[in-house]
Amino acid sequence: MAEVKLHGGWASPFSNKVVWALKLKGIPYEYIEEDLYNKSASLLKYNPVHKMIPVLVHGEKPVCESMVILEYIEEMWPHNPSLMPSDPYDRAQARFWIKFAEDKGVAVWKMFFSTGQDLENAMKAALEMLQTVEKHGLGEKKFFNGDNIGLADLAFGAIAYWLQVLEDVMGVKLFESHKFPSLHEWFENFRKVPVIEENLPNQHEMVIAFKHRRETLVTSA
Amino acid sequence: MAEVKLHGGWASPFSNKVVWALKLKGIPYEYIEEDLYNKSASLLKYNPVHKMIPVLVHGEKPVCESMVILEYIEEMWPHNPSLMPSDPYDRAQARFWIKFAEDKGVAVWKMFFSTGQDLENAMKAALEMLQTVEKHGLGEKKFFNGDNIGLADLAFGAIAYWLQVLEDVMGVKLFESHKFPSLHEWFENFRKVPVIEENLPNQHEMVIAFKHRRETLVTSA
Repeated sequence: MAEVKLHGGWASPFSNKVVWALKLKGIPYEYIEEDLYNKSASLLKYNPVHKMIPVLVHGEKPVCESMVILEYIEEMWPHNPSLMPSDPYDRAQARFWIKFAEDKGVAVWKMFFSTGQDLENAMKAALEMLQTVEKHGLGEKKFFNGDNIGLADLAFGAIAYWLQVLEDVMGVKLFESHKFPSLHEWFENFRKVPVIEENLPNQHEMVIAFKHRRETLVTSA
Repeated sequence: MAEVKLHGGWASPFSNKVVWALKLKGIPYEYIEEDLYNKSASLLKYNPVHKMIPVLVHGEKPVCESMVILEYIEEMWPHNPSLMPSDPYDRAQARFWIKFAEDKGVAVWKMFFSTGQDLENAMKAALEMLQTVEKHGLGEKKFFNGDNIGLADLAFGAIAYWLQVLEDVMGVKLFESHKFPSLHEWFENFRKVPVIEENLPNQHEMVIAFKHRRETLVTSA
């Protein structure tokens, strides 16, 4: 098997989504932690367009963009377990929610980088995202695809886990269990998957790191 | 074969991408033109999350989001012609550029809806998008996937064709042939594909429609 490498960042939701997919499928890989303030020559060579993590390098060939990487992993190693439904219509539904997570999840990161009215707007957008997923996303299902974890769960798992960290950092509470019972139940199911549980970055360390970054941001704003 | 319906808008790039894919594959379908100021009950039922066109309805089951629809069409009717590469790595590259088109192509529509500094920013972002695709997107290839048209071409075709219309409407010129020789050559190849040529919405009618809309926007701003 060609060698698999992942250029990532320990506290990045985009990077961790790729870690989860690789670990769920039991694919061995070498992990390279990137310093985002001093990116490696390899990262710049492998991702000349965005110069961003994560980059998956498979047999020296780079794949960039976290959800593109996840679809690649699924197509290269489709089994043990499969992370997309086998039916094309169900796959389209999974992709619909993956796109929703990518487009609307941005609000969560905007919160972190904003103050004042911009922060208010980002919080409002983040709440609307949660409300839409609560209403339309899951129904009675355990995971987005049904009984088993899949790529859409990884997409929203990265949003929900980091949102809780950012709530702690910023002293706000959006993802309340009484307002989002269906999403909270799903998030419990997600976290209880053994591979996920073992591969969530340490929440306490993230709060410290993000608090520090937020203070620098707000002071320099 | 289950019945295929498309809820669309004649001047929408998102809707036309779906038309092109259906026509390229020769899939018969019923077209329903939506009035976006008075959306049909069917559209609201089929796309409760975004309430937007295009929606593809296949055997009464709706698929929403233009690029999700295109991947669905490709998976349901994979041949005659195939619009994605067969190799998973090449497919990841196609998806990378499709995502790039979706994320960065937004600048073109922002131009249309903006004035003043916002318009300047959107024009700068649109130029940067073109520069990146010129530099990294095509190389010596005729189309994004190589010798044959594919989904990434439909994604950028919708940007390039509409950009030319908006340039005319707004009296600006960004997509200049001497600045973007590779992209211009690709665009000529794209337009010359018979199915595309026969299914481009009338440019003159679009200019009139968008000019009218732009005047309303600017006056009410």
